[in-house]
Amino acid sequence: MKRDLVSIDDLSSGEIAALFRTVDEMAARPREWTHLAQGAILASLFYEPSTRTRLSFEAAMHRLGGGVISAADMRSSSAAKGETLADTVRVVGGAYADILALRHPAEGAARVAARYASVPVVNAGDGSHEHPTQTICDLYSLYAEKGRLEGLDVVLSGDLKYSRTVHSLAYALARLRANVVLIPHRGFEMPEYVLRRLRERYGNEPQRLEADDFRSIAGRADAVYFTPQRPHQLSLFTEANRVAVAKLDALYVTRPQQERFTEGEAAPPVRIDREALSGARFKDTFVMHPLPRVNEISYDLDQDPRSLYFKQAARGVPVRMALLAFLLGRLDLGAEAPAPEPTAEAVRGRLGMACPNPTCITNLESHYLEPEYVVVSRSPLTASCTFCEVAVAPVLVGCASTRVFHRHNSGDVRRIKAEHLVLFASEEQARGSGFAAAGRP
Amino acid sequence: MKRDLVSIDDLSSGEIAALFRTVDEMAARPREWTHLAQGAILASLFYEPSTRTRLSFEAAMHRLGGGVISAADMRSSSAAKGETLADTVRVVGGAYADILALRHPAEGAARVAARYASVPVVNAGDGSHEHPTQTICDLYSLYAEKGRLEGLDVVLSGDLKYSRTVHSLAYALARLRANVVLIPHRGFEMPEYVLRRLRERYGNEPQRLEADDFRSIAGRADAVYFTPQRPHQLSLFTEANRVAVAKLDALYVTRPQQERFTEGEAAPPVRIDREALSGARFKDTFVMHPLPRVNEISYDLDQDPRSLYFKQAARGVPVRMALLAFLLGRLDLGAEAPAPEPTAEAVRGRLGMACPNPTCITNLESHYLEPEYVVVSRSPLTASCTFCEVAVAPVLVGCASTRVFHRHNSGDVRRIKAEHLVLFASEEQARGSGFAAAGRP
Amino acid sequence: MKRDLVSIDDLSSGEIAALFRTVDEMAARPREWTHLAQGAILASLFYEPSTRTRLSFEAAMHRLGGGVISAADMRSSSAAKGETLADTVRVVGGAYADILALRHPAEGAARVAARYASVPVVNAGDGSHEHPTQTICDLYSLYAEKGRLEGLDVVLSGDLKYSRTVHSLAYALARLRANVVLIPHRGFEMPEYVLRRLRERYGNEPQRLEADDFRSIAGRADAVYFTPQRPHQLSLFTEANRVAVAKLDALYVTRPQQERFTEGEAAPPVRIDREALSGARFKDTFVMHPLPRVNEISYDLDQDPRSLYFKQAARGVPVRMALLAFLLGRLDLGAEAPAPEPTAEAVRGRLGMACPNPTCITNLESHYLEPEYVVVSRSPLTASCTFCEVAVAPVLVGCASTRVFHRHNSGDVRRIKAEHLVLFASEEQARGSGFAAAGRP
Repeated sequence: MKRDLVSIDDLSSGEIAALFRTVDEMAARPREWTHLAQGAILASLFYEPSTRTRLSFEAAMHRLGGGVISAADMRSSSAAKGETLADTVRVVGGAYADILALRHPAEGAARVAARYASVPVVNAGDGSHEHPTQTICDLYSLYAEKGRLEGLDVVLSGDLKYSRTVHSLAYALARLRANVVLIPHRGFEMPEYVLRRLRERYGNEPQRLEADDFRSIAGRADAVYFTPQRPHQLSLFTEANRVAVAKLDALYVTRPQQERFTEGEAAPPVRIDREALSGARFKDTFVMHPLPRVNEISYDLDQDPRSLYFKQAARGVPVRMALLAFLLGRLDLGAEAPAPEPTAEAVRGRLGMACPNPTCITNLESHYLEPEYVVVSRSPLTASCTFCEVAVAPVLVGCASTRVFHRHNSGDVRRIKAEHLVLFASEEQARGSGFAAAGRP
Repeated sequence: MKRDLVSIDDLSSGEIAALFRTVDEMAARPREWTHLAQGAILASLFYEPSTRTRLSFEAAMHRLGGGVISAADMRSSSAAKGETLADTVRVVGGAYADILALRHPAEGAARVAARYASVPVVNAGDGSHEHPTQTICDLYSLYAEKGRLEGLDVVLSGDLKYSRTVHSLAYALARLRANVVLIPHRGFEMPEYVLRRLRERYGNEPQRLEADDFRSIAGRADAVYFTPQRPHQLSLFTEANRVAVAKLDALYVTRPQQERFTEGEAAPPVRIDREALSGARFKDTFVMHPLPRVNEISYDLDQDPRSLYFKQAARGVPVRMALLAFLLGRLDLGAEAPAPEPTAEAVRGRLGMACPNPTCITNLESHYLEPEYVVVSRSPLTASCTFCEVAVAPVLVGCASTRVFHRHNSGDVRRIKAEHLVLFASEEQARGSGFAAAGRP
Repeated sequence: MKRDLVSIDDLSSGEIAALFRTVDEMAARPREWTHLAQGAILASLFYEPSTRTRLSFEAAMHRLGGGVISAADMRSSSAAKGETLADTVRVVGGAYADILALRHPAEGAARVAARYASVPVVNAGDGSHEHPTQTICDLYSLYAEKGRLEGLDVVLSGDLKYSRTVHSLAYALARLRANVVLIPHRGFEMPEYVLRRLRERYGNEPQRLEADDFRSIAGRADAVYFTPQRPHQLSLFTEANRVAVAKLDALYVTRPQQERFTEGEAAPPVRIDREALSGARFKDTFVMHPLPRVNEISYDLDQDPRSLYFKQAARGVPVRMALLAFLLGRLDLGAEAPAPEPTAEAVRGRLGMACPNPTCITNLESHYLEPEYVVVSRSPLTASCTFCEVAVAPVLVGCASTRVFHRHNSGDVRRIKAEHLVLFASEEQARGSGFAAAGRP
């Protein structure tokens, strides 16, 4: 069976550990692996602009001795003629290439591609959702510097809403038992669906601070703060002192993902610099960033030994070499694959509500993709989108067999068979689909 | 002498048959041919967006062990600075690469490239004109499924005006003695110049139906129809029953080439689905499409064993492997090349009328390309453009030696020597070029 | 130590001569060098559109057996997200690739890239500044045809202001003791900084003619002129006869670099054709052009044996093969590297004036790049930008130690230590930086 890398959870912890050992070897002798992908072809399908990620995949494939076919600007080629993602990957990810690296602006796009392609699909970033290969670079960099991941204190800061890299990273850190501290920009908090997955899958409840708190982590004598770029922004940083952190192993900074902002959203002009990290608690704090940075990290940190971002990026090639070789079936990691997830109740079909996330792939390519949900709870009924994972809270729940609908928190909902569940966003939608209110018997 | 593939007629029937045997072998063992293009370089020059075609050429070259240099967006590179196609291919198709794959929005562009490049040129689509490598994929797919091409009944449907794939395919089917049935969208009929070539070169007169007729092919008890996407479009499909088709071997569906539409042109929202193909006559009808599709073929056909479009696309790589290896001179097909066409009278020169096709390459790059016509008939004088093949009907015909012009249907036209022929679109043009009306002696 | 090719002066004359011998061999047997870059990767980073240059670099790398990763449209990928050139090359030119080919619209960009990349950087054109690999093609072509460079009479004509190719070529011709004649379009004269470098480094003072003069070079009986494309432009060409040239070895024609024009600049519609070159003095004159041409050279010259431009372009691949192999350290030229330039006084730092060239990389990426000047003279103080080389004439000169400023031509300026020099464009700027006027003691 083919292996895809859509979510970081598609790799078991054992596989991640084994990958690290392979990356060590590949980084040490980068030119000795040209036998591994001999005769294989990687297709880069990039629906969003990228240089670093695409070039690192392609450099990795070259180092493995494979061939590369590259579509750097899919938006203006077949997609411009109206071709669906499914059609594209069925052809390119079947007959043309032996493995696909896909970047796409819609959440869930990589999951769709993995279903339709007959070859392994690597998610090189799907909207605000996940970016698992970056996470392996991040984890490997931390591991290489700190010698372990378990028990590390890692701050994820900035745009936690739209930054896909911190989503995948949070899952992995939680699973590998690091401590995750969140310091989002105001209005850019970690999405609920990420927090729920952290809680439900890994029992992890990350510490959450406001950006204001960061200044006070180290106390008065040892002031630590984000440097605002304009003086009048100082008011962002108050003296609140609600959380104490003894020391930090890593501070992960993110670029405000302005290309995904909705109207009215604006990132605060905050920048990390040497002064911000002058406190004792930051003595051994690695500053990480997935790059490209804009202004979040001052250039004065580039020469600081705690800056890890260029090393992270440099490791992109050996990490992706190991991943490509593994997914192509040319590298045996000797570790068990992840256990299959317990089968959850699924809701499928054209009837009922669309995914509430407007940039979910099911909304952007709705002419062939049906909404598909996983039931999280029966009372009240809540679910999440199979593709983009956002929470789905129907107002009404119907039974496709009786054509009757109930309120989402009605006890009757529990009696509907899973295969008959239909979720509605409104009574109007339910009645428009030919469903009637549950009557009294 | 170098071999180009500008038109499907650049391959003899024997060569096509021999190619099929090679494609069989290459498809069966795709990784065993890396010796064939060792050291050779393919240049992809794409002046129109494309993913599938470009990537399949490039994947094919990788499978042959060759190198690839790729310009996916020529419109915004050298062409943006005003460089001509001729200059570009003289350099790239001379010193940089050993073979060129060219896609261009102007009809006749591939012919121009073949003249100026010193290496073989493969036409990867020139405007609405031809797309011969797609045709080899189409023919090979039909042949692989049906075991023969001769005598097959093949419907070409949809946008027959702008769809270059059906032009090349119609020529090949006619030559290989399949029966061609045309069912164009209204207003998108097969161009006259294609019909003339079918008639004159292959003695083929395709059956022509209106889209309305398709419904009635199978008779009342066995209704067959294109499914209109909106109910009020049903009126498109009347009960006319002028043609009877016993059974169909293939139904070739095309995407309305909206990017080539002129103002006022609009494609009807017609879609083929399972129901349309439920009649007995369609039991063994393969549904073909060059992809990308938009809405012409319902997704419910994707799992139907009669759907051939993904297989067509999948065969793009082995087909192009065989073609590239052949054109590079690395594969001996053991078949005779096409006989040279009988020499026709040619009209060349800056004097006289421009090609009436506004998207002909001679009009788009008129500063160095002269109009060039082949005389079809002397009385009245008709001709066709050497590059885009559209019919040219001059109003007046001049003699460059006597500087006298005649009406196009004058008996005097027959006495003008071929090298003195000048075609004029109007008397004003003739007089402006210094020609005078033929006087009485 | 790594070798970059930012300026043509990064190669010694001995190295250029040795390169020529290698190019001879590579051009003669282009397929025998695949061992030279085995396992190495070239990254093409193109911030400006290009086909020819990019494809020739990539074809060269394929011929050397290396791999290629290619970013043909950097403006719309990482750069669109706001990433700096420095960050991009630190990653791509460190961990991903073994050598970088960079094209960028800002003067000085290649110098910046060379500083930040840990691998060799090849300047594939930086704004209007330099284009050294084109110059090697040009020199090699001249050498191959004429058998020498010393003493040749070479005219550089057209847009000498923005055409980077003629800047690099003028330096090389001067150094190799050819005679350089300049015939710029009016308003597009060779920049002062180029003339100064010709004078100061090579003792070369090129002959300068107006475009008007060209016509009269050969005298009345043997008229020579640029052909204006519209009759009313004839007035451009007067009968002035101020310069006599006995014969010309080469006429280098340039495309008006319209993409760099500022408002109000317009190139005259001048074109070289066979008639213009009919005089005896042009019997052995090679017509050169870096391509793409637009209308500067008539198509009627293409078949003329004196036209050298397609041969120049054809030589792009073997020339770049030799250069890449050399810079990668895989080819020993057996020649001495250029002597280090004598250390000049440098002025660095954020205080003081910005480079007066608005398209200098230091102005486009000012958030991390500091202005940096080389002192040319102390009285009055003049300097040149380290990156784009334009002349810098401060109004005032400050001493960072005393915080006092002087007029640029004051004798006191000579007494300021080099490391304390600060250049100001205005008194307002000096006072705004906290400097005071020099007082009387």
